[in-house]
Amino acid sequence: MTQRIEVQKKVLSENDRLADGIRRRLKARGITAYNLVSSPGSGKTSLLEQTLKNLAAELNVALIAGDVQTENDANRLRKAGGSRVRALETGGSCHLDAKMIDRVLADFDLAGVHLLFIENVGNLVCPSGFDLGEDMKIVLLSTTEGDDKPLKYPAMFRRSSVLVINKIDLLGTSDFELATVKKNARLVNPDLKIFEVSCRTGEGLQSWFAWLRSVVEQRTIPAH
Amino acid sequence: MTQRIEVQKKVLSENDRLADGIRRRLKARGITAYNLVSSPGSGKTSLLEQTLKNLAAELNVALIAGDVQTENDANRLRKAGGSRVRALETGGSCHLDAKMIDRVLADFDLAGVHLLFIENVGNLVCPSGFDLGEDMKIVLLSTTEGDDKPLKYPAMFRRSSVLVINKIDLLGTSDFELATVKKNARLVNPDLKIFEVSCRTGEGLQSWFAWLRSVVEQRTIPAH
Repeated sequence: MTQRIEVQKKVLSENDRLADGIRRRLKARGITAYNLVSSPGSGKTSLLEQTLKNLAAELNVALIAGDVQTENDANRLRKAGGSRVRALETGGSCHLDAKMIDRVLADFDLAGVHLLFIENVGNLVCPSGFDLGEDMKIVLLSTTEGDDKPLKYPAMFRRSSVLVINKIDLLGTSDFELATVKKNARLVNPDLKIFEVSCRTGEGLQSWFAWLRSVVEQRTIPAH
Repeated sequence: MTQRIEVQKKVLSENDRLADGIRRRLKARGITAYNLVSSPGSGKTSLLEQTLKNLAAELNVALIAGDVQTENDANRLRKAGGSRVRALETGGSCHLDAKMIDRVLADFDLAGVHLLFIENVGNLVCPSGFDLGEDMKIVLLSTTEGDDKPLKYPAMFRRSSVLVINKIDLLGTSDFELATVKKNARLVNPDLKIFEVSCRTGEGLQSWFAWLRSVVEQRTIPAH
């Protein structure tokens, strides 16, 4: 088992080295990068579709859509108006890693881009351990998944800076309580910024858009 | 990377050896074992709660509730009437493996047990690769997760023998189509047996219970 742990450590430190390089290069171009993580079906693609539909006219958004298999998500994002969308099929792997992102970025034209969203594989466990060079992780949780999830999958909530609670239009159809999930999330990570939205009805999305706008307005673009 | 692959191969073959031993020992006692897999929040624990409440009087059911962290699920199952429930905290690992099950079974009294349910970690990717010594994997998918999931996470649907579609009471609240998810699931695995249920309203559960009863009636108990 020590052999296994040593190999894992080596893989992770190599990942961190690549991730730091990605972060440095993106920062140098004034691009803010988000790593979107959640269970399958929480609404990562829906949130990005809404973001594109509402912000594409004012902000330059680039997207990398990770999937175990299929290019479904990337196709949905192109249909929603994404002009810079790259599919990243992991071919079985349960998470994205920095090497995959590094390869995609090698020939991805990011001229003028403000925000880069990386949609991770739907998995509330493994992606938490892999830095992709992002500015922050954003975790999504939908109201149909249960308000105990931050306690059951704490690593993901601890390593994320923002929590987007999606499908608030379905509140009342289960025993999911907004107050409980927020309490549980803040037990694990007191600093979490929380949005409550429905990507289906649009409720709550204005705050999300306003936050993204403010991030772009406040960024510092390094002198060249 | 070859070093990493070799270590992974070794871990998997060791897992398969342990799983075969578990399967042999359970079979010798006439116990049917199911490995329940799904995304977080699809309703694995809810399905088991309903199963206990409705069948505990006629069938002897034992349960192992796997979680990354917390004993929440095991506590829910005890409250639902489970008299033989063991919590299995993985302490960070994204899946159960045969070694963990082997350890639990070492001092788990299974005298007279008909069915053993192993509730895996909520993760639609990694648990697909680990045989726990079960008779079959049962995959759950809830209607709130999207009808494209069998195509996006094919390994889990290919390696499962039964698909339980949960939360059918929420059909119509999203663009999830029962016909589409069944078509997609059968594209990946034409032999899947499919149940459509709502663990909240009880709809469809009678077929699930009837199937479990028939499994127990039809099992052959080896002569000692």
